Amino acid sequence: MWRNPASKCYSRDMSTPKPKLDFWYEFASTYSYLSAMRIEDCAREAGVEVRWRPFLLGPFFKSQGWTSSPFVEQKEKGSYMIRDMGRMCAARGLPFKMPEPFPQNGLYAARLALLGEDEGWAGRFTRLVYTEEFTNNMQLDDKIALGECLTAIGLDGDAYLACSEDAEIKTRLRDQTQQALALGIFGAPTFICDGGEKFWGDDRLEQALAWALK
Amino acid sequence: MWRNPASKCYSRDMSTPKPKLDFWYEFASTYSYLSAMRIEDCAREAGVEVRWRPFLLGPFFKSQGWTSSPFVEQKEKGSYMIRDMGRMCAARGLPFKMPEPFPQNGLYAARLALLGEDEGWAGRFTRLVYTEEFTNNMQLDDKIALGECLTAIGLDGDAYLACSEDAEIKTRLRDQTQQALALGIFGAPTFICDGGEKFWGDDRLEQALAWALK
Repeated sequence: MWRNPASKCYSRDMSTPKPKLDFWYEFASTYSYLSAMRIEDCAREAGVEVRWRPFLLGPFFKSQGWTSSPFVEQKEKGSYMIRDMGRMCAARGLPFKMPEPFPQNGLYAARLALLGEDEGWAGRFTRLVYTEEFTNNMQLDDKIALGECLTAIGLDGDAYLACSEDAEIKTRLRDQTQQALALGIFGAPTFICDGGEKFWGDDRLEQALAWALK
Repeated sequence: MWRNPASKCYSRDMSTPKPKLDFWYEFASTYSYLSAMRIEDCAREAGVEVRWRPFLLGPFFKSQGWTSSPFVEQKEKGSYMIRDMGRMCAARGLPFKMPEPFPQNGLYAARLALLGEDEGWAGRFTRLVYTEEFTNNMQLDDKIALGECLTAIGLDGDAYLACSEDAEIKTRLRDQTQQALALGIFGAPTFICDGGEKFWGDDRLEQALAWALK
């Protein structure tokens, strides 16, 4: 039977495709930072491919009638999170200075990461933004600082910042955020395997990777 | 210097005291079940002594303006919890049938466990109640069933059920629940080390034990 060498079918014949794991994250989310800094190493070791899925949690919070993050709405939970993040980051050798104000506005960073997902630099960009956010209190809505992050990973910062204002990318982020709501995502990070199995929280990354390999 | 052989001071001289870990749990809480079934084995291995601290989450929920558990208030989070609990219990070889209705009323079980804490049977009683709750949908407010749990661990069920109606034990549970609020406990299970370091969630049990040993 004749086969088009350029077809997806053919490329699947060429090598066994890696199972995929969707990594849904929000730039303002502290626990997303924990996962972003390790997911590619963990996934490489497991033999799983990561799809970076930036989205915004704000619309979910609104759908629950909240005016902010649960870490702001619930004072005790917020204090605990800061302590827990401090312990976790110390154990992993990650910097941790709580962003002020909290939560940050992750809109522009998320749009840029979406562009990066198309071109393969979402991971590098995301890790650098998180590092600046949690080390130097970089403000996520500071476009100049975001442009510097792009430049630092070898990209044309101005060009991508301009792209991030395109109607197309705005719509894509809105759609991706709506998709998160439709998938029943209620927090970040969330990991979703092909087939839909869902894992919430950095603590579940290993389980999500194991499930993806099933 | 003369020493009373029965004094606490003397008994501390006799052997190095184990560090202690307070295990704050609620009988209606699914994730408390996960910890209750393993905490004594884990703590024994670590060389830590567990103090069973049953309390009620209802007053905390009320303080947040909620009418029920977050797993009821937030539909997506509730569905996810059931799936996550199913996976966790399967991995640990624990039975898991979601209690109906949810959440159960843990008042009487908590009062009885308080009595058990004084006499050293809180762990055995708690594990049996959880097992019945998550295997056979035992209703936590079914005093006959609770009495059968007491009998099954070799106690006089009727006598302890009668004790659980004493004003003293009612007050103690109210006080313990107020103490949980004062400690900033916002969910269960919560582990608190001597010195006050707080860990929330079954996923943090190992870290809590390690901290207790510091």
